[in-house]
Amino acid sequence: MQVGVIPADARQHSVAAAFEARGDEVVYLTLSDPLPEIVLFPMPVSEDGVTVFANGDKLTDWFVRLQGRTVYGGRVSEAVQTLAAQYGVTFWDHFKQEEEIIRNIIPTVEGALQLAMEQTPFTLHGSAVLVCGYGRIGKLLSRHLAALGAVVTVSARKGADLAWCQTLGYGTVFTADLQACVGKQRIIFNTVPTLLFDRTVLDKIPSEALIIDLASAPGGVDFAYAASSGKRALQALGLPAKVAPRTAGEIICRTIMEREENTRG
Amino acid sequence: MQVGVIPADARQHSVAAAFEARGDEVVYLTLSDPLPEIVLFPMPVSEDGVTVFANGDKLTDWFVRLQGRTVYGGRVSEAVQTLAAQYGVTFWDHFKQEEEIIRNIIPTVEGALQLAMEQTPFTLHGSAVLVCGYGRIGKLLSRHLAALGAVVTVSARKGADLAWCQTLGYGTVFTADLQACVGKQRIIFNTVPTLLFDRTVLDKIPSEALIIDLASAPGGVDFAYAASSGKRALQALGLPAKVAPRTAGEIICRTIMEREENTRG
Amino acid sequence: MQVGVIPADARQHSVAAAFEARGDEVVYLTLSDPLPEIVLFPMPVSEDGVTVFANGDKLTDWFVRLQGRTVYGGRVSEAVQTLAAQYGVTFWDHFKQEEEIIRNIIPTVEGALQLAMEQTPFTLHGSAVLVCGYGRIGKLLSRHLAALGAVVTVSARKGADLAWCQTLGYGTVFTADLQACVGKQRIIFNTVPTLLFDRTVLDKIPSEALIIDLASAPGGVDFAYAASSGKRALQALGLPAKVAPRTAGEIICRTIMEREENTRG
Amino acid sequence: MQVGVIPADARQHSVAAAFEARGDEVVYLTLSDPLPEIVLFPMPVSEDGVTVFANGDKLTDWFVRLQGRTVYGGRVSEAVQTLAAQYGVTFWDHFKQEEEIIRNIIPTVEGALQLAMEQTPFTLHGSAVLVCGYGRIGKLLSRHLAALGAVVTVSARKGADLAWCQTLGYGTVFTADLQACVGKQRIIFNTVPTLLFDRTVLDKIPSEALIIDLASAPGGVDFAYAASSGKRALQALGLPAKVAPRTAGEIICRTIMEREENTRG
Repeated sequence: MQVGVIPADARQHSVAAAFEARGDEVVYLTLSDPLPEIVLFPMPVSEDGVTVFANGDKLTDWFVRLQGRTVYGGRVSEAVQTLAAQYGVTFWDHFKQEEEIIRNIIPTVEGALQLAMEQTPFTLHGSAVLVCGYGRIGKLLSRHLAALGAVVTVSARKGADLAWCQTLGYGTVFTADLQACVGKQRIIFNTVPTLLFDRTVLDKIPSEALIIDLASAPGGVDFAYAASSGKRALQALGLPAKVAPRTAGEIICRTIMEREENTRG
Repeated sequence: MQVGVIPADARQHSVAAAFEARGDEVVYLTLSDPLPEIVLFPMPVSEDGVTVFANGDKLTDWFVRLQGRTVYGGRVSEAVQTLAAQYGVTFWDHFKQEEEIIRNIIPTVEGALQLAMEQTPFTLHGSAVLVCGYGRIGKLLSRHLAALGAVVTVSARKGADLAWCQTLGYGTVFTADLQACVGKQRIIFNTVPTLLFDRTVLDKIPSEALIIDLASAPGGVDFAYAASSGKRALQALGLPAKVAPRTAGEIICRTIMEREENTRG
Repeated sequence: MQVGVIPADARQHSVAAAFEARGDEVVYLTLSDPLPEIVLFPMPVSEDGVTVFANGDKLTDWFVRLQGRTVYGGRVSEAVQTLAAQYGVTFWDHFKQEEEIIRNIIPTVEGALQLAMEQTPFTLHGSAVLVCGYGRIGKLLSRHLAALGAVVTVSARKGADLAWCQTLGYGTVFTADLQACVGKQRIIFNTVPTLLFDRTVLDKIPSEALIIDLASAPGGVDFAYAASSGKRALQALGLPAKVAPRTAGEIICRTIMEREENTRG
Repeated sequence: MQVGVIPADARQHSVAAAFEARGDEVVYLTLSDPLPEIVLFPMPVSEDGVTVFANGDKLTDWFVRLQGRTVYGGRVSEAVQTLAAQYGVTFWDHFKQEEEIIRNIIPTVEGALQLAMEQTPFTLHGSAVLVCGYGRIGKLLSRHLAALGAVVTVSARKGADLAWCQTLGYGTVFTADLQACVGKQRIIFNTVPTLLFDRTVLDKIPSEALIIDLASAPGGVDFAYAASSGKRALQALGLPAKVAPRTAGEIICRTIMEREENTRG
């Protein structure tokens, strides 16, 4: 399969490397090249809605050439989607596919573990750690923490989630009772995108503890108050591209190839 | 319990902190202080055989005061042991106790995982990793790698070890056949203190692979040849004190307290 | 706390034993006894809508005495609920609480493992096993099977579930492609309450394989055709009470006590 | 490869089935058949030292024909070995090979889990269980019990073993202090072949607890006293052949094939 990659940043290069490792022929495309079957825009496709991200080609110069086709890109803004439609070009946003979202949980969780190991003078093994939220990230994170020997407590809003966590051997606490339990934790991972860690809760957290916020921006921590009151809180965003760019590239490549295989039958 | 700590480096401070966290009273001792029940020298006790490590007090000035007593220290050289004996002082070397050796495996293995995460652009999850040697470090390391989703192969000399590893779901290879398997690995952890990774084996390892040598110095890798042939090989020594000094201090404190409890009955 | 248990079958006895183990005072109630704070009917409360299950007391004789109160029972039919309401009695059906449903997954899954061990001449370790459906039972079952060393494949309808299963190291197959994969399995656990195992699929299953159907009646297997075509298929219903009656009793006791604590604040 | 199996009991049949599943040609040998490359005697080879076990052929009739060859068998007594030597026949006892001993630990441990599940009215999950001895069986057993959610305590004589067990998250107790801990256990697995469970220890065990003795005969339990004092103690011997005869056959087949491959190079 021939794959045309519109050159941009290091991430785009990782995806290209993943296609090459599969045995596909990869071409870094310029506007004058012939068009291969697969055309991949960067992620995001564009920041300004006019030019290709980290590349500068005019979007419309590309769209003119790609008329009638479906092309690949990540984090396609609505404006870009609309502009493309005017030229008869459809974006398939790999970053929105549930399979890709799920696969990105792995580098996110490993990145969180790495960060915790780097930023603390003690081992995860034997440490009391709290995982706030029991969505997908919370599920894999608590599993890996427990496997490494941490003493895991999970907080969630729903009793059913907590009953399940007890089944898996974790300590549990209702989100509403967070205050009562944060004082004993060495590391707190937050995955909930609402302000759980406000002044009241932060005041209960000892200064040696570390808070790692994995929730999408603006996150669940009052970072300004944390800083001013001497609490250690890190906002960890976009971990896959930071800690495992190669894996992040492989995941994007895989999502695209699965769609190609489904389309071609 | 009163604990007298002869001040030295950061490690000594970690041990003191661990005693304090237990509720013990900790005193940083100078030669003019009264002597508490427990006296702890640093680790090593001395580098030159004459003065206390990172402190400069004369050993003999201490030994005169400690006559007839058993004191604590780590990595007590034979020369220091002999000198102390001349003054009727006995060293109990916590670093030689099997319990401490075993507990130090945890920060060693976590440190190895952290290093592997930091030094590679891919996740451990899904990566082919080789663990050379199936002693204590090899056992815990392969267990944690598998728990994080790595595809683990273990190499060992004894068929019985490999049969056991198959039982645990790992791939296996005899040490003698290392050459045949290193080409497929993304990360190679060595725990065997003999030169397994000589020129012949290094030549089979791809340049993107990472070798982490955990074996005690001089280790099991021809580092000079690795460097000159563009292979990535890291010598990882003394990981507990580097990646988890607080835990390392807690382990020493625990070893000493267990001995105290056994002695006092 | 005083707990009044209306005597019925062995299960009711298990719940009583669980209260006793907690230190509660348990009374087996007859119609002439004074009424304690907690009154527990059996499970089901009644089969005929007229008398108490496995006891024979008239329901209405009890309801007259219990007017205005909330009482406990399991599997309370709508008819019984309505009849009770006429007397001002409210049933709190512990069996419908999500926490109890979740906790019952543990004995269900352990029972499934026990059944598989008993009914096969090989170990789970190293055996190819298929788990159909990735709801709560499928999740815990595949986790425990993998922990015991089985080679686990999960089938599900949703790609997102399969992506997650790949994350956890399981083989995956879409439910629609079940036919293509059943031929290689030694044990097949079904958790999906629709007819997945019809004639076409059963024909692909080797006669040495074992099918264990955990889905609620009528289950997901054409048992008549399985029997006539020499396939081994077991319908495993109500496992908690069968394989771990004591644990089943403890779970009911716990559900009731959590409600009591929440009610009393 | 042609494999000649001297017919005996069901176990011998399982080994034959395992060879067939590999694609080998299996012949049930009589004294008048031509001799294939591989000849397999049953396990034990002989009970009376004169005839083949469960078959009745005279050993010497076979040995005359097999002169100068190496043949396979399990549990070859010294008398049989000597008799064979007089005819120039050498037995390779697969049952003595460390690889086979290790692989048999899997069905032994699964059998122990099955027995525990069958013989108790509660789940392993959440139950306090004690594993006495931390040899190979103790290691795998405690690992699987913990994976299933049991609360595991390990007893051993050596402090180093206990330090390692703490590393893995188990509770620990010195063998000498067994008395102090047995009262809280729901299931006790013994793997130590010395009389740990004498009258004094048995008196401390509650009557609802279950003792499963996996140590080779005569085991580590005073069974007579246990019976007379109302304690439940089971002697579980030869579990692989009982709970997983098919797997037991596969293990023997594998041991023999590995030797054949090593011999032929």
